Amino acid sequence: MSLLIVGSVALDSIETPWGRVAQVLGGSATYAALAARLWTPVSMVAVIGSDFPAAYAKMLAKRGVNGAGLTQVKGRTFRWKGRYDENLQAKTLFLDLGVFKSFEPKLTAGQQKIPHAFLGNIHPSLQWNVLRQLRSTRIVACDSRDDWIKNNRKEFLSLLKRMDLIFLNDSEARLLTGIHGLVQATRHLAKMGPKVAIVKKGEHGVLAASKDSFFSLPGYPISQVMDPTGAGDAFAGTCMGYLAGRKLSWANLCRGIQISSVAASITIEDFGPARLTNLTKADVLRRCRAFQAISRPVVL
Amino acid sequence: MSLLIVGSVALDSIETPWGRVAQVLGGSATYAALAARLWTPVSMVAVIGSDFPAAYAKMLAKRGVNGAGLTQVKGRTFRWKGRYDENLQAKTLFLDLGVFKSFEPKLTAGQQKIPHAFLGNIHPSLQWNVLRQLRSTRIVACDSRDDWIKNNRKEFLSLLKRMDLIFLNDSEARLLTGIHGLVQATRHLAKMGPKVAIVKKGEHGVLAASKDSFFSLPGYPISQVMDPTGAGDAFAGTCMGYLAGRKLSWANLCRGIQISSVAASITIEDFGPARLTNLTKADVLRRCRAFQAISRPVVL
Repeated sequence: MSLLIVGSVALDSIETPWGRVAQVLGGSATYAALAARLWTPVSMVAVIGSDFPAAYAKMLAKRGVNGAGLTQVKGRTFRWKGRYDENLQAKTLFLDLGVFKSFEPKLTAGQQKIPHAFLGNIHPSLQWNVLRQLRSTRIVACDSRDDWIKNNRKEFLSLLKRMDLIFLNDSEARLLTGIHGLVQATRHLAKMGPKVAIVKKGEHGVLAASKDSFFSLPGYPISQVMDPTGAGDAFAGTCMGYLAGRKLSWANLCRGIQISSVAASITIEDFGPARLTNLTKADVLRRCRAFQAISRPVVL
Repeated sequence: MSLLIVGSVALDSIETPWGRVAQVLGGSATYAALAARLWTPVSMVAVIGSDFPAAYAKMLAKRGVNGAGLTQVKGRTFRWKGRYDENLQAKTLFLDLGVFKSFEPKLTAGQQKIPHAFLGNIHPSLQWNVLRQLRSTRIVACDSRDDWIKNNRKEFLSLLKRMDLIFLNDSEARLLTGIHGLVQATRHLAKMGPKVAIVKKGEHGVLAASKDSFFSLPGYPISQVMDPTGAGDAFAGTCMGYLAGRKLSWANLCRGIQISSVAASITIEDFGPARLTNLTKADVLRRCRAFQAISRPVVL
């Protein structure tokens, strides 16, 4: 069953201590879609400017991403230039929202009936806007960011009550709950509305909680991060793609989280979406097996 | 087979946002011994002052810890007073090394023949001193701290080459290797001398590396940390206690790490060594099973 992904599509210029790339395809919807398409048909809703390279749209289509919802309007595509330091902390060097500033997602009748939706990292009012248009949801999830948790808290809190899953990173989880300890913060999030709260901790792995269950997974120990951009979106995209068409059971969720963690670990081994673009299901499953071998608790 | 533990014995006064205790039994040797005694006979070598409460020595003996190496000399016992903030960062409010200042561990002929030894958090020259006295070691491990890694680096680096296991926390591992990423830091440590490097990450779990193997475990998600004092020593004590008399295989090591992680998670649920003092093997194994249930990677 199909997955709707709403978010940003951008042109990213990225510097890390290990290299740099300029104006590569980026944005939350891009990473989520390129990750999710391995598991389910994906429809992407986003806005691009008149400067958006046709080659990128073609590449997405070739990867099976339905780009009918990729609206091209006059103006510049969202551009971000950032630099990561050795500790993978990002600094924004340049930001031009371009046509994303006036993004107003409008779903077609067909898109409204897609049963799974990931509301990527966009303003809570846009996430609400999309949610109201959906007609027959089975699993809906969202992401967010520090700014919106701080400045649009009320709107985001009301959205949470309608979510099946919420994906946050460690600092967002702390900000939203006011709790420093991440185990407690994750458990608390699961009482704030969503059926399941998923908190990503970078190299330290991921925590998930529902009202009565808990799951904890370490990070896959990759040799060298090249560029952390998009890891969180690749995680959420994979998880939603895996769950689309499956029962939202705790076992399926834990499997989904494991696969997502592995997909994110592969994403960050090259710049931009390079690894995701050429990724196969077999690549992901191979690393899942390696991951199990080095992190399986031993039966006592 | 028996385990020799050399380290400090102290009287600790501890404040956390969740309560406080005054002059409770503390020190690296104490926590390590109380944890290890569940798995193997323990002989403790440490120094105490004339003010050391007889009740504490009696309690240790009652728990099966051989205190023949607990030398009482004239003067005050090592005292530490510390306060933890909400993020579990410690601040030392008062420190009196007392008789620990002139601690010179001297092993009896019997102690020299104990095949397993944990060189707790003491000066590298004292760790070397003990190592030179040991006659028939099978597994020897050490801990350290930021000060000694900074100020006695050469001595500590030479000690490392003689260790089977080294236990460090995240900041110590970064300091010693100069590598921020903990997966890489742990792998690097395993090339600096010890057969196995074990890096403890608090709530994020633990990493272990040998030259050709890797293991990663998340933290056990406890509800509320009351007092993190001694968690690292309880971890190391449990691991060495479990391995004493077992083959130092990778599977046994992973089992040991898992049990140690659980023992540390129990330790910090009450103040000082209160939980460790009354802990049974059954308590630890029960939580190990619960831990497996919430952190087992799912077979795909």
